[in-house]
Amino acid sequence: MIVILRRDASEEQVRRIVSAIEEAGFGAHVSRGEQRTIVGAIGTSPEARPILIERFKGLPFVDKVVPVLKPYKLVSMEAKTQREPVRVGDVSVGPDTFTVIAGPCAVESEEQLMAAARAVRDAGARLLRGGAFKPRTSPYDFQGLGEEGLKLLAAARRETGLPVVTEARAAGQVELVARYADVIQVGARNMQNFDLLKEAGRSGMPVVLKRGFASTVEEWLKAAEHVASAGNLNIILCERGIRTYEQAVRFTQDLAIVPVVRELSHLPVIVDPSHASGRRGLVGPVCRAALAIGADGALVEVHPNPDGALCDAAQQLRPKQFEEMMRRLRRLAAALDREM
Amino acid sequence: MIVILRRDASEEQVRRIVSAIEEAGFGAHVSRGEQRTIVGAIGTSPEARPILIERFKGLPFVDKVVPVLKPYKLVSMEAKTQREPVRVGDVSVGPDTFTVIAGPCAVESEEQLMAAARAVRDAGARLLRGGAFKPRTSPYDFQGLGEEGLKLLAAARRETGLPVVTEARAAGQVELVARYADVIQVGARNMQNFDLLKEAGRSGMPVVLKRGFASTVEEWLKAAEHVASAGNLNIILCERGIRTYEQAVRFTQDLAIVPVVRELSHLPVIVDPSHASGRRGLVGPVCRAALAIGADGALVEVHPNPDGALCDAAQQLRPKQFEEMMRRLRRLAAALDREM
Amino acid sequence: MIVILRRDASEEQVRRIVSAIEEAGFGAHVSRGEQRTIVGAIGTSPEARPILIERFKGLPFVDKVVPVLKPYKLVSMEAKTQREPVRVGDVSVGPDTFTVIAGPCAVESEEQLMAAARAVRDAGARLLRGGAFKPRTSPYDFQGLGEEGLKLLAAARRETGLPVVTEARAAGQVELVARYADVIQVGARNMQNFDLLKEAGRSGMPVVLKRGFASTVEEWLKAAEHVASAGNLNIILCERGIRTYEQAVRFTQDLAIVPVVRELSHLPVIVDPSHASGRRGLVGPVCRAALAIGADGALVEVHPNPDGALCDAAQQLRPKQFEEMMRRLRRLAAALDREM
Amino acid sequence: MIVILRRDASEEQVRRIVSAIEEAGFGAHVSRGEQRTIVGAIGTSPEARPILIERFKGLPFVDKVVPVLKPYKLVSMEAKTQREPVRVGDVSVGPDTFTVIAGPCAVESEEQLMAAARAVRDAGARLLRGGAFKPRTSPYDFQGLGEEGLKLLAAARRETGLPVVTEARAAGQVELVARYADVIQVGARNMQNFDLLKEAGRSGMPVVLKRGFASTVEEWLKAAEHVASAGNLNIILCERGIRTYEQAVRFTQDLAIVPVVRELSHLPVIVDPSHASGRRGLVGPVCRAALAIGADGALVEVHPNPDGALCDAAQQLRPKQFEEMMRRLRRLAAALDREM
Repeated sequence: MIVILRRDASEEQVRRIVSAIEEAGFGAHVSRGEQRTIVGAIGTSPEARPILIERFKGLPFVDKVVPVLKPYKLVSMEAKTQREPVRVGDVSVGPDTFTVIAGPCAVESEEQLMAAARAVRDAGARLLRGGAFKPRTSPYDFQGLGEEGLKLLAAARRETGLPVVTEARAAGQVELVARYADVIQVGARNMQNFDLLKEAGRSGMPVVLKRGFASTVEEWLKAAEHVASAGNLNIILCERGIRTYEQAVRFTQDLAIVPVVRELSHLPVIVDPSHASGRRGLVGPVCRAALAIGADGALVEVHPNPDGALCDAAQQLRPKQFEEMMRRLRRLAAALDREM
Repeated sequence: MIVILRRDASEEQVRRIVSAIEEAGFGAHVSRGEQRTIVGAIGTSPEARPILIERFKGLPFVDKVVPVLKPYKLVSMEAKTQREPVRVGDVSVGPDTFTVIAGPCAVESEEQLMAAARAVRDAGARLLRGGAFKPRTSPYDFQGLGEEGLKLLAAARRETGLPVVTEARAAGQVELVARYADVIQVGARNMQNFDLLKEAGRSGMPVVLKRGFASTVEEWLKAAEHVASAGNLNIILCERGIRTYEQAVRFTQDLAIVPVVRELSHLPVIVDPSHASGRRGLVGPVCRAALAIGADGALVEVHPNPDGALCDAAQQLRPKQFEEMMRRLRRLAAALDREM
Repeated sequence: MIVILRRDASEEQVRRIVSAIEEAGFGAHVSRGEQRTIVGAIGTSPEARPILIERFKGLPFVDKVVPVLKPYKLVSMEAKTQREPVRVGDVSVGPDTFTVIAGPCAVESEEQLMAAARAVRDAGARLLRGGAFKPRTSPYDFQGLGEEGLKLLAAARRETGLPVVTEARAAGQVELVARYADVIQVGARNMQNFDLLKEAGRSGMPVVLKRGFASTVEEWLKAAEHVASAGNLNIILCERGIRTYEQAVRFTQDLAIVPVVRELSHLPVIVDPSHASGRRGLVGPVCRAALAIGADGALVEVHPNPDGALCDAAQQLRPKQFEEMMRRLRRLAAALDREM
Repeated sequence: MIVILRRDASEEQVRRIVSAIEEAGFGAHVSRGEQRTIVGAIGTSPEARPILIERFKGLPFVDKVVPVLKPYKLVSMEAKTQREPVRVGDVSVGPDTFTVIAGPCAVESEEQLMAAARAVRDAGARLLRGGAFKPRTSPYDFQGLGEEGLKLLAAARRETGLPVVTEARAAGQVELVARYADVIQVGARNMQNFDLLKEAGRSGMPVVLKRGFASTVEEWLKAAEHVASAGNLNIILCERGIRTYEQAVRFTQDLAIVPVVRELSHLPVIVDPSHASGRRGLVGPVCRAALAIGADGALVEVHPNPDGALCDAAQQLRPKQFEEMMRRLRRLAAALDREM
């Protein structure tokens, strides 16, 4: 880390910084300019570093503390020599494919789920999604079918051959979800639920890690590091929109973050246009943009009869609309030399 | 709710809206202007309403859907004829007092906690805070002492007489925390952890509910409604800063939301200046502003030796600084006719 | 507009609203539900409406005021039966083309501009951009060549045949800029400079109207309405990134707003990836996404020698990079049935 | 500045950075850690620095460029040994007073302005505000009385003795405004109108510089530097709310920025609660918080009859409300040892 002192910092204060760095086991390096004195700390200790940074920030004679190393390692680009796919059964996510994961917002009934599953498989989706445990912002909303929903998902997999992605809402649900599903989804509101991240990590299963709707890229990758540090690198990052001042859409889809993340991390990145926009009319255009900007896939909500859906009716595509969208995506993928 | 149709909506489309409203058990009322047709739904059904709103939003001939009723009831101002305090032992939070809750970010050791507890009690704090389970954004950071920390907190209460506020990080921890503490804190990252909210509600204990750092007032009150709908109205709302584009501070403290919340809800609102600013120099000024704007209290981090703290060193006050801050607050409280 | 009263509003207060609506020349329509009384105002008067809305908002017994009509007309989708291109000489912008406008951030010298102009023309750009008046955030930065820069732009047009887009920074500069350029650009920081908008409107020339970096879609279209209401509908909207909490890029490119704007307005929308990202590595991917999501073009910075540029060095493409980007865009455009 | 290279940067790339730094006239200092190489540039040249920073940012082997010096000098705390008031006639703004500036949003008529002016003077305001040139977001809104309004303001000063604050909307209006007013206001939408800033600087008159509603503290102080570098240090900074995701209020008042700005700059900082909240009920509480947090004053809208106001009706105080607010502020000021 680099510590930039205030202009009026005294020699004694410079020495305080140097001692603290040395006591923490780092080497210190002082550079005196005309206007400022700068102290660099050399060496690495992932435990000692954040404490020291925080401590220096609180000193009145310190102007700025600049970390030099990234606060994540296993998921960073520097940790790998080449980008590899995350495999779910015989489906690959990244780096040369565009993998579409589709299905209803919530599992509502056997009939609804089977209709959705068949429709998305026929149109070219490679994985099936569906929520059994729904995090709902109001206590008066539908909360999901729970384990019954998981069983239906497993049945839909048997029927269609599509591996299943579903959300675990708490650390204690991971084992249950892992029993029925193929990929564990960690929702945006849980991106910093560190117990859940660790448990998902320990499970060894592929994890879809949604970006918190007000999380920075750095926080997102640190959350992925929680999963990775429990021994699991099968992580698929998922951009699902961030909260901004603009209210014309539900969330602002941060598509341009995809190439930024791909520079920082070797993990595949997919995009969820359904939750970001909250409107089915935007799902197709955003998917095409996601593909064009280099995303590794998309997570799309499809419902056999959205008007009767128990949640998120406005954003779920009808099977016909999904089919048409997939047709246009395939043509685009060909022009971009991507498999689909 | 009110449904505003697009200019070119047909008579048949108007009828579709009316039928859907009536089938859901509401009355429909059509108003035709020169430029727009508007349909109102009359009646209340907290379950049917959100589904209908979502469904109408997805229709291509609908321009806007405007909810008329608030999505929370028990915590709304309309639910009570007068504002009452939340009581913790013999301490009252709101509406005529300014209650300061203070203590270290994390419980680190018996010595550290006891020193902090005595210092904050002597300076006039009414409740003791301290974290046993720390949600840390990096897996390489200190994660808290767990149950050992809870035991130390209970010991500090015996020693100082101050009731204890501490965080539960998951639904499964509520029972454990309730065994040792007097108030359960739900952290900002857990504001939409609905299982935890419900469990905190069932416990019947006073709850400090922090605002998510990207949550709207409406979402915050809906989260409180989750606690309340489980039968527990002992909720203290806590503003702890929101995420904005400004990076000169860690979070933007949304002080002006205090009078807004007090208009919408009967619950007391306190302010946490330590996490918002991330710097001890701002804690005093923000506390004074919180008192002046009508907050019911503040949650302040105090550490006997911040330079050696295992977390958030920069924002924790030294005991002397806290004492001086409390002295200035008392003078201000007197000029505002508030008890402290 | 619709006025939703508070639950406890009295009959007398309802009458106050009704009288105010009628005195302003509107019809009033009262609807009494079990929980709320709602008053609708029928009729249109673009002058009286905003005053009334603002006045009602200030009344303590009013809960919410909801406008029914959009605050812009001439630029709205409802004002036209079909989408038409904006024409600059024989170049069309929208709705079936993807028009690339390219050139250096600032005009620095004849040599620099000519090299850039030839390079972008040869690679397929249809319009030349370059700044003569630069709005710089620091007084110590390069401020542009002024009229001398405009003359060089005109010379570059003669040489390459490309029509010229350049920024006017104030109402008083419009006439001067119009003398040399083919399209007047209104920068993001001037999106609400209403004198400039009106003057650009009066000029009758095509206008590129950048979105303010913290402006909503509604404010952007209201700004366009300022130009349009001065008699000029030759407006090209340009999304150039919005300010969010994310600091990994300079601005968050709001690509998903493109289909939203196309639903609300008949004006073409282009995208500026250079200013949003601030890094040349993102320009290509964002351009491809812009094309895929349905934008009508892009505004791209190209400099013959970015390392020696007097401004925005990091985001300007080298001619080779631009050429390669255009090649990939053309292939993509073919797969999307768009002309380029 | 400090340049942090990517892990895999070659020796040749390090040399490129060093050469570029030396060619720009700075000294270069290389520090090689185990993981990263860091190059520091020593020396100052306000012109060369931003160009170099921008250029390095664009290099693929550079990870981060960290400026060491602040991009403003004259307005920084380091430029002065002590804080001095800005004087307007015999009124002082800062550092020991809390100066209230009040008056109507827009000058509408002689009668309206005189009534407002007398009321605010009698209640203790020290300066009179009123808009003659109104920046309106819709072309259908009231645009102000222009020079006629300025004449009325000058008449109100003669009548009440209160110096006058009014907005100039463009560089070309500064001379006209300076002829009638005592303080030139630069509005939030013009904070980066650099021609206007420079002209206001040249006028030598006191300037109220509002913070742009999406501007960082650094940009705000750079804007102030534009005024200062034209030879005018009579600058009063004014926080008027920033745009965030929260829609319960018009803008989020960033009160906690006041102590932050006071640490960085010697300029006085006042707060405008009227525009931020858009509701008169919040004006009093926010003013009290502004005083408590250390602001040097407030800018408050007062109208003799807000219900008939031509703009911003909801946020303007009635004279009685203003009087009551001032009474409470004075009591608070006494408890904080501030003059009013």
